[in-house]
Amino acid sequence: MAKKIRRIGVMTSGGDSPGMNAAIRAVVRACAYYHTECIGFYRGYQGMIEGDYMEMNARSVQNIITRGGTILKSARSKEFLTKEGRQKAADNLKKAEVDAMILIGGDGTFRGGKIFNEEHHIPIIGVPGTIDNDINGTNYTIGFDTALNTVVEAIDKIRDTASSHNRLFFIEVMGRDAGFIALNSGIGAGAEEILIPEENLGLDRLLDSLERSRRSGKTSSIVVVSEGDKIGKNVFELAEYVKENLPDYDAKVTVLGHIQRGGSPSCFDRVLASRLCVRAVELLLDGQKNLMVGFVNNRVEACSLDQALKSKHKINKDLLRISDILST
Amino acid sequence: MAKKIRRIGVMTSGGDSPGMNAAIRAVVRACAYYHTECIGFYRGYQGMIEGDYMEMNARSVQNIITRGGTILKSARSKEFLTKEGRQKAADNLKKAEVDAMILIGGDGTFRGGKIFNEEHHIPIIGVPGTIDNDINGTNYTIGFDTALNTVVEAIDKIRDTASSHNRLFFIEVMGRDAGFIALNSGIGAGAEEILIPEENLGLDRLLDSLERSRRSGKTSSIVVVSEGDKIGKNVFELAEYVKENLPDYDAKVTVLGHIQRGGSPSCFDRVLASRLCVRAVELLLDGQKNLMVGFVNNRVEACSLDQALKSKHKINKDLLRISDILST
Amino acid sequence: MAKKIRRIGVMTSGGDSPGMNAAIRAVVRACAYYHTECIGFYRGYQGMIEGDYMEMNARSVQNIITRGGTILKSARSKEFLTKEGRQKAADNLKKAEVDAMILIGGDGTFRGGKIFNEEHHIPIIGVPGTIDNDINGTNYTIGFDTALNTVVEAIDKIRDTASSHNRLFFIEVMGRDAGFIALNSGIGAGAEEILIPEENLGLDRLLDSLERSRRSGKTSSIVVVSEGDKIGKNVFELAEYVKENLPDYDAKVTVLGHIQRGGSPSCFDRVLASRLCVRAVELLLDGQKNLMVGFVNNRVEACSLDQALKSKHKINKDLLRISDILST
Amino acid sequence: MAKKIRRIGVMTSGGDSPGMNAAIRAVVRACAYYHTECIGFYRGYQGMIEGDYMEMNARSVQNIITRGGTILKSARSKEFLTKEGRQKAADNLKKAEVDAMILIGGDGTFRGGKIFNEEHHIPIIGVPGTIDNDINGTNYTIGFDTALNTVVEAIDKIRDTASSHNRLFFIEVMGRDAGFIALNSGIGAGAEEILIPEENLGLDRLLDSLERSRRSGKTSSIVVVSEGDKIGKNVFELAEYVKENLPDYDAKVTVLGHIQRGGSPSCFDRVLASRLCVRAVELLLDGQKNLMVGFVNNRVEACSLDQALKSKHKINKDLLRISDILST
Repeated sequence: MAKKIRRIGVMTSGGDSPGMNAAIRAVVRACAYYHTECIGFYRGYQGMIEGDYMEMNARSVQNIITRGGTILKSARSKEFLTKEGRQKAADNLKKAEVDAMILIGGDGTFRGGKIFNEEHHIPIIGVPGTIDNDINGTNYTIGFDTALNTVVEAIDKIRDTASSHNRLFFIEVMGRDAGFIALNSGIGAGAEEILIPEENLGLDRLLDSLERSRRSGKTSSIVVVSEGDKIGKNVFELAEYVKENLPDYDAKVTVLGHIQRGGSPSCFDRVLASRLCVRAVELLLDGQKNLMVGFVNNRVEACSLDQALKSKHKINKDLLRISDILST
Repeated sequence: MAKKIRRIGVMTSGGDSPGMNAAIRAVVRACAYYHTECIGFYRGYQGMIEGDYMEMNARSVQNIITRGGTILKSARSKEFLTKEGRQKAADNLKKAEVDAMILIGGDGTFRGGKIFNEEHHIPIIGVPGTIDNDINGTNYTIGFDTALNTVVEAIDKIRDTASSHNRLFFIEVMGRDAGFIALNSGIGAGAEEILIPEENLGLDRLLDSLERSRRSGKTSSIVVVSEGDKIGKNVFELAEYVKENLPDYDAKVTVLGHIQRGGSPSCFDRVLASRLCVRAVELLLDGQKNLMVGFVNNRVEACSLDQALKSKHKINKDLLRISDILST
Repeated sequence: MAKKIRRIGVMTSGGDSPGMNAAIRAVVRACAYYHTECIGFYRGYQGMIEGDYMEMNARSVQNIITRGGTILKSARSKEFLTKEGRQKAADNLKKAEVDAMILIGGDGTFRGGKIFNEEHHIPIIGVPGTIDNDINGTNYTIGFDTALNTVVEAIDKIRDTASSHNRLFFIEVMGRDAGFIALNSGIGAGAEEILIPEENLGLDRLLDSLERSRRSGKTSSIVVVSEGDKIGKNVFELAEYVKENLPDYDAKVTVLGHIQRGGSPSCFDRVLASRLCVRAVELLLDGQKNLMVGFVNNRVEACSLDQALKSKHKINKDLLRISDILST
Repeated sequence: MAKKIRRIGVMTSGGDSPGMNAAIRAVVRACAYYHTECIGFYRGYQGMIEGDYMEMNARSVQNIITRGGTILKSARSKEFLTKEGRQKAADNLKKAEVDAMILIGGDGTFRGGKIFNEEHHIPIIGVPGTIDNDINGTNYTIGFDTALNTVVEAIDKIRDTASSHNRLFFIEVMGRDAGFIALNSGIGAGAEEILIPEENLGLDRLLDSLERSRRSGKTSSIVVVSEGDKIGKNVFELAEYVKENLPDYDAKVTVLGHIQRGGSPSCFDRVLASRLCVRAVELLLDGQKNLMVGFVNNRVEACSLDQALKSKHKINKDLLRISDILST
């Protein structure tokens, strides 16, 4: 029979994302509501290894729902990749009388959690917190929606100056292995072309499209490029290539970088984080474990960590078609 | 057999919402892509009655995806409620050689469209554009997500001053018949209480909750109130009532009003508008009619206008429970 | 000879304004830089009376520069208006070994500080923190610039919906006795008319102007109204009056309210707060007292509290002329 | 005697800046108010050379006050650097019956205007529109304030993620020859260090400061770097150098790039543009010429183009001291 859960630990791990604070708040408040103790570990697995934590009550998370980043900090822990590191973490949880953990992060975080659970049998629930939206078992990860708004606002600003100068801009957005950010922000910003890791349309097609776009009377062109696009050139080489082949264009590059991880979370991300984390606490109190909570078909649903990890969340390739139609 | 569609009309009607321009752009660009002509009627049904329209091509919608409001204007037409008015509109469509209409608006708009089609047999596709999210047959209406962000940003600002002065704020948001905005923005803004038209929890419960909240050490309280809440008092009377019964509180009122309808649309609303309207054009070209396109379970889907109109989109009452837990 | 200053107290008082946290941070950091102790009193004069304070060091103000409101809270203290209240405050300062005070607030705050100094001889420097910009001896008060941006962004949103519906909007902004916010935000938002407390142009002129505006082909009209305008009607009565006299107009009202006090401060307000408060600390350490620091002709300058209090900062009436010209 | 001015031309030239549209609007509306004709040339001097312009009336500038960029487009014209190019421009102005020109741009624009006037005697007024704030004869250029807010908002977002990971960020901002943006945004964003073209503090000082900052318990560090800083390394080399010498730091780089030129202008920039351009029109109508309008000591003032061009606007080095004190 499952041990009664009296004390839940929570941490954030991997790349931070907007809404992680809303998630922490929801875990802490749900624990308070269900008269369960809650402690927060700093810097993800590293804080578990070092026993670096604080006790949290409903007031410790006051007003953090509005803030980007994570008050518990985040890190990637090399030590946790070792058996010894995980043993230390398990010892610390025991000492701190933690009965279960809620892990807020991406697939690296969940992979670590799965091994940890196999070795030390501490119940775990994963909450998908990453701007990349590349987690199986949920339509949206916490932070994705805010990142899209950040990217679209940035491109809107660049569009102002691109239109004023009849320029072509290459804009690199995050997404090393997944084109979710590029695809959605590209459609949202009205980009002329979108390059993603999942599809290599080739350089000729890009040149054709830009040439057509110019002839159709467009006063500016925006190409959104995923960090991990498969075209075989980085964004600066790409811009050089286009300048050489389409000398009429004054091509510029902007790499949006880490502004995409920050900022006050959107309402969508705050509500998503709130709903997922209340459910995470309730699942643990209900004796469940080794699940990830997700938002699927407009409902909160849980799947096994295995399922969440077995493959990547696939992009909707129909969005490429939509983008083509709309950049007419 | 369905008549071939060579020319599509588009209009926006009812209360305007952010993303209507993105929707117009998607209709126009999809028409251009499919070599179909497109004309835009001004001020909804009124422009159809007056024959007030412009021919639109891919360039007429340049850079409007970023803008709030609607370049085609919107209105509520009394004349269209009469048989004569609708006859004039039909005559004008005939004169302008319009084979089908795409109507962007709320349920009033669709009701008008249904009667119009019954009388004049012009194929119609409805696109749900309203900040209220109260349309059956779609999980999200165009403009809802942006309105939520606008409300949450406004409440975040009010929270700054509320916290600085240990104050209680009643904030009225839009939603005469539906609590979608109040419920989601209330959770997103971390409101202590949320009052919606669909549920009357009573004044005693409100006083209790505020009293408990104060005793638990909260430095400020926010109550989000739908325009159409069922508590039997308007927001100013409500604040007076609370002041009388909880004299420790310095209660203030803010009515957010029309800022909720404006602003540059969020990425979510831009992508939603783009996807729904490309589909709307494709459905017409495919010989379909009298449908509404919606976003259901993370997919674009169409339902009959009848279905969209037969009942209201219901709020998820579980969100009230989430709000209760999180305002602990 | 002036007593050596070893410990400085700081507080915020009156209506809060964006940038007060940046001001607190600058006081605390400047104290740390000059090896002077610093304590922060909560809720303005009330915290001095109750001895409610905390010791502050460079780390206590980490990351607050970005946040609206004031971490020291603000209040209007009735008790401080009495001799007994002020005596208690003086006793508490003595007990806490505070040698001088920096008061961040408006003219009410400074008036209190002047009497306090006359009775208890504790050196005081005032820092103008209010969104109203109505303080003599400075061109800009801390929070004014942010409030203008908040108002202009709100009116931009309302303009979206006003333009979509060809509507007239009356928008009430803060400024009970001073038209600074109305005048500057009105010009910034391209308002058709601006009503301020300092000038009563009469109702006939307003009607004329709106009528002219409509005839000139404007698709929407915005009238910005100061809370304290002198036209003898509140904003709702004004809208009614216009509706009766100009029935073609669909007039609506929005009262912006407390969103104007909140929000992350603009860069201007952060730099202003930083510069004024570093100077405030340096003046105290230099043996100066009973001054207000201000930003005059693009330089930080100090004037006596008497001078700051002897009259109101006057609006630049030329701005009304500019507004007239631009709403052509 | 000066020829009567019946028709004024306006153009925007050089790098675009937020508020240029507000400036165009003010020129056009002031012309309308004074019953003077107005035409707008596209793409700066290039449009003058090509005779590419449009007639503008009060309605042509409707609602553009809110938008970034410039509806008249901007460009840098090589042809205008030649005598022949300038002759063509003069011929076109004559043909279009333009009696005087208002030039919105930076010092390159004004230098061109000065030569043009010397050769062709067409009265000219310059309006300082550039984000760089590097123009003599004005405390603020149009667009500078908005750019500062854009930079500060971007750094606030990066601070979220920097704090979550205890990281060091190097952030490159615009300003090839002038440190205005770096200096003000650096103070506004609470940067730990600011590197500007006007001052080379050396690499040792930077390392010392970062080391001290880390020891004092700071959880993140931000270094703001002007494009044109004089430290002899670009921002990527700088980050590498610091990583080698301070291995405890996880240093990252973000180049903000062209987002700094775009965005809806701040209230300050809209009011500034409005006031300067009304004055520009009035000066021309008053028979004045070859002046630049500026905002000096809180007043609109004009200086000769010569004076505006004879030296650069100097940064206030006291701000470096303020930054040092506040990053304690």
